[in-house]
Amino acid sequence: MSPTLLSRQDIQFLLYEWLNIEELSKNPRFTAHSRETFDAALELSETVAAREFRPHNRKSDLNEPHFDGRTVHIIPEVAQALTAFAETGLLAGTMDEDLGGIQLPHVVHRACFAWFQAANIATCGYPMLTMANANLLRAYGTDEQIRNFVTPMLEGRFFGTMCLSEAQAGSSLSDLITRAVPDGPGRYRIFGRKMWISGGEHELSENIVHLVLARTQGARAGVKGLSLFVVPKYLVTEDGALGERNDVTLAGLNHKMGYRGTTNTLLNFGESVFSPDGGPGAIGHLVGEENRGLDYMFHMMNEARIGVGAGAAALGYTGYLEALEYARTRPQGRPTGRKDPTSPQVPIVEHPDVRRMLLASKVYAEGSMALVLYAAKLLDESTTAEDGVIRADAARLLDVLTPIVKSWPSQWCLVANDLAIQIHGGAGYTRDHNVEQFYRDNRLNPIHEGTHGIHGLDLLGRKMVIDGGAGLGLLTRTIRDTVHRAPDELAPWAQQLSDRLDRLIEVTALLWWDNHPETALANATVYLEAAGHVVLAWIWLDHVIAAHGREGAFYDGKRAAARFFFTYELPKVDAQFDLLSTRDMQLVELNPACL
Amino acid sequence: MSPTLLSRQDIQFLLYEWLNIEELSKNPRFTAHSRETFDAALELSETVAAREFRPHNRKSDLNEPHFDGRTVHIIPEVAQALTAFAETGLLAGTMDEDLGGIQLPHVVHRACFAWFQAANIATCGYPMLTMANANLLRAYGTDEQIRNFVTPMLEGRFFGTMCLSEAQAGSSLSDLITRAVPDGPGRYRIFGRKMWISGGEHELSENIVHLVLARTQGARAGVKGLSLFVVPKYLVTEDGALGERNDVTLAGLNHKMGYRGTTNTLLNFGESVFSPDGGPGAIGHLVGEENRGLDYMFHMMNEARIGVGAGAAALGYTGYLEALEYARTRPQGRPTGRKDPTSPQVPIVEHPDVRRMLLASKVYAEGSMALVLYAAKLLDESTTAEDGVIRADAARLLDVLTPIVKSWPSQWCLVANDLAIQIHGGAGYTRDHNVEQFYRDNRLNPIHEGTHGIHGLDLLGRKMVIDGGAGLGLLTRTIRDTVHRAPDELAPWAQQLSDRLDRLIEVTALLWWDNHPETALANATVYLEAAGHVVLAWIWLDHVIAAHGREGAFYDGKRAAARFFFTYELPKVDAQFDLLSTRDMQLVELNPACL
Repeated sequence: MSPTLLSRQDIQFLLYEWLNIEELSKNPRFTAHSRETFDAALELSETVAAREFRPHNRKSDLNEPHFDGRTVHIIPEVAQALTAFAETGLLAGTMDEDLGGIQLPHVVHRACFAWFQAANIATCGYPMLTMANANLLRAYGTDEQIRNFVTPMLEGRFFGTMCLSEAQAGSSLSDLITRAVPDGPGRYRIFGRKMWISGGEHELSENIVHLVLARTQGARAGVKGLSLFVVPKYLVTEDGALGERNDVTLAGLNHKMGYRGTTNTLLNFGESVFSPDGGPGAIGHLVGEENRGLDYMFHMMNEARIGVGAGAAALGYTGYLEALEYARTRPQGRPTGRKDPTSPQVPIVEHPDVRRMLLASKVYAEGSMALVLYAAKLLDESTTAEDGVIRADAARLLDVLTPIVKSWPSQWCLVANDLAIQIHGGAGYTRDHNVEQFYRDNRLNPIHEGTHGIHGLDLLGRKMVIDGGAGLGLLTRTIRDTVHRAPDELAPWAQQLSDRLDRLIEVTALLWWDNHPETALANATVYLEAAGHVVLAWIWLDHVIAAHGREGAFYDGKRAAARFFFTYELPKVDAQFDLLSTRDMQLVELNPACL
Repeated sequence: MSPTLLSRQDIQFLLYEWLNIEELSKNPRFTAHSRETFDAALELSETVAAREFRPHNRKSDLNEPHFDGRTVHIIPEVAQALTAFAETGLLAGTMDEDLGGIQLPHVVHRACFAWFQAANIATCGYPMLTMANANLLRAYGTDEQIRNFVTPMLEGRFFGTMCLSEAQAGSSLSDLITRAVPDGPGRYRIFGRKMWISGGEHELSENIVHLVLARTQGARAGVKGLSLFVVPKYLVTEDGALGERNDVTLAGLNHKMGYRGTTNTLLNFGESVFSPDGGPGAIGHLVGEENRGLDYMFHMMNEARIGVGAGAAALGYTGYLEALEYARTRPQGRPTGRKDPTSPQVPIVEHPDVRRMLLASKVYAEGSMALVLYAAKLLDESTTAEDGVIRADAARLLDVLTPIVKSWPSQWCLVANDLAIQIHGGAGYTRDHNVEQFYRDNRLNPIHEGTHGIHGLDLLGRKMVIDGGAGLGLLTRTIRDTVHRAPDELAPWAQQLSDRLDRLIEVTALLWWDNHPETALANATVYLEAAGHVVLAWIWLDHVIAAHGREGAFYDGKRAAARFFFTYELPKVDAQFDLLSTRDMQLVELNPACL
């Protein structure tokens, strides 16, 4: 019997006791909702995730999609699960009612989706991309584009993709070279090769809606010359019927370490341009205005990055629960000091080092889930609150937290998955248990949607410091508010947090004092990691404040986890701040021939 | 074009410039050897590893051994590679000449084998176990056992295994229940099920020689009731010919995350005992005396653990070289501050964060290789030196270092492999590159031959403190000697190392001051990790002393790596020592219901 995918009690704690999301139903957008409707959505998600997503998680890992030269084959359970997902209504969960949506708060929708991510992260790739695509196109598309593409995506008939990367460009979107040639009003012919396109080809849906970054003729170099196009696999006629196949062809599948159930493709747009006789190119429709493609993409970037953090959190969390179950039921060895070999073995959860690994996993997994839901609530507040001031603050706080929301779970929930293998011992290294797959799946998360290093640059180079350091200022006020609310018995932790926050502020100022980016950013990744731990210390302190005065193992567990974080984890930042304080330039000065 | 498997220049530096192994040829055991014979062995190893081991590394990962119910099938390249390995003579590389050996020093043999481990760790599993088995049996077996089993193993005709674990016992050897029933002089019938047996069944060799821990009737409980038996797959007649099949049967193969080319098996000894009609049991021959089985196993444990550390080091090292090659040749993005998108992209090795990852990998990989070779030299000194005092010191220093030699490379070279994936970005997550396999292969190393946690207990609970702390004392003198030899310009690093060594000594005393193991060992893994970093700081300081006054990119690289270790790595231990100093008991006191 496998343990539950996530802890229902913890999700409830986070949503209702910590984030007080019931307050959201005061907001006009959510007046149709209440704790009852939230709980119904959560319960449905848990049920469908366990019934339709979890059972084929290993099977789709062992039977990755394959391409026979004509068709991509995917095990049938994936299509069945995605039909079940569409039937939940969650594809349009956060959408306006007039688009057929439920107008759920993002924070609830995020928690719902986490159940699916914990059950089967690879199958979740399809709806995740489809929802992101639909959100973008809903915001910037024409009415016709919404009718022809968004509506079928929200119904689960079409799936979406995001086509940014190219082999020569990777993280450097400046260097994209895919071209768009005008071909009538709002219509273009697209020529280029896109790389790393998840969900780029399959037979799971009637159609695939590609959102493609490309450059129109004469557009300037760099990211400001990128435009965005809708390029469907099958053309859609004016009345919404499927027309002929567009010139978008699969050049190959990538074979990955994990996440194997999600097809990952090389796509040729206008394939025939690469052949000697030339060709027509793929028909694409401009989204919004020319040269604003990346702006539109960034609109959904916060959400996509919360999504990556959430996936990492869900994998870390479910792996932690599997390791915990194993530790509680696996007898092995005896307590320190009791060596009598005739005495019974004890469950390994009795061993201090196993507890260390479990507590570390708990702070990583529960902390990550909390951070992700906090960010999702900020998304709700920044897009829907009535009061303009609150809304701007929420948006800014979300901006500054986003690199951490993406990166911290990706880093530390991967460690949780690594520890889950270790707790299982040799068993965890085999495919008889799920934890090795969780590890392999989660290993993607520090790479996609901006690598770990890119987010360090984003945090220290932009988010913390733009507008005179308003991001850091807002984060500081938010953390100080928690520090000030701490009851006396939590004062030592509040002080430790406050001290580290002071160091974060000092270090940020010191790094930027002469406004020299090369110096300031030389250790941006170290900064990202230190800032992440400070933020998580704040999350954990805020948790135990929310749990204050409440009794029982669950709340004691929150206190035990916070204690662990403050004693085993937070002190790690001191060495990082010390290093940052020296403005060490060895990485910049290094002669690479020495490597 | 793939980069070289390891750095030849670095291996030469470690052996000749740092460890001064040419001195070993003064030792009577090695008088036939010189730098020329060492270099010949190293060169041969590199050649055969590259030609016979590397090419099928991915293929054997993609085509893991399978069992059709009768026979285990393994891709033919494995047998061919193992024949080539046997032809090098390295199976008997360290053995006495009168056994057909070459009497190479362990340190040279270890370096030779590292080339093979870097090329194909899974195929190396077979000779590694065979050599360990032969070494043990040579030391404790009868002449007949040596003739019938050791000689054919050294010739590569028989392969060996180590059968310790059982499903219910894992790390707790006390709880082994396999039985041995007397069946004539020195002969027993073995009944039991062994788990996690690498190389337990295959058709690669004429015979398989299992060394099996089992309990004779009436033997006491615990590890002191374990005896050791040779149990061949095919019985061997008095004249050395193969006889009938023994009652050792394959119950199944384990399917692993990595190391897939090495069969890992569940073996039934005396299978028929589990069937209703009973059966004869597997015929085994006692090795040495009854009840001393674990002593004999421990005799080869240091060597096996160096072997695991070496495998981890080799994987980390070769992954580092692949990542370095990729970073030097992959253009992507532009330097901080140069944003002009029309300027050419630069190789990613120009980015500070990529350099951080490469330098970290370099200190982990090269530091691990150095540590492993240092330990192997201690093995030579402790088994062959003339002067009894030196010999005892070398043996003790090896004992105290062994948990670190096993664990530090297993932990940090796995991180190096993780960073190699990150440096490759999305490409590193695919099977088009080797680094994801290196990661999966290396993930075994913190688990087998004693888990990470077990080695923490061994180091802090035994190796550092037995005999009045003689182990710690000797380690201290060894490190202080390096500190005192540091030239003035290295004085700051020497001081930093000395300060951390002081803390290690203080913390060890503090943890044990009231001689209460439960308190002392509550954070033994944290202690292991801190001690490991102190030892590696010593290794790196010792390196730059050896490189002192030498010019060129290679030596500059050693200095750059040492600088990185002293600024980015060593300071991590302060938080660990701080935690240990509080004698924190939260792991022991935790109510597991809170997890």
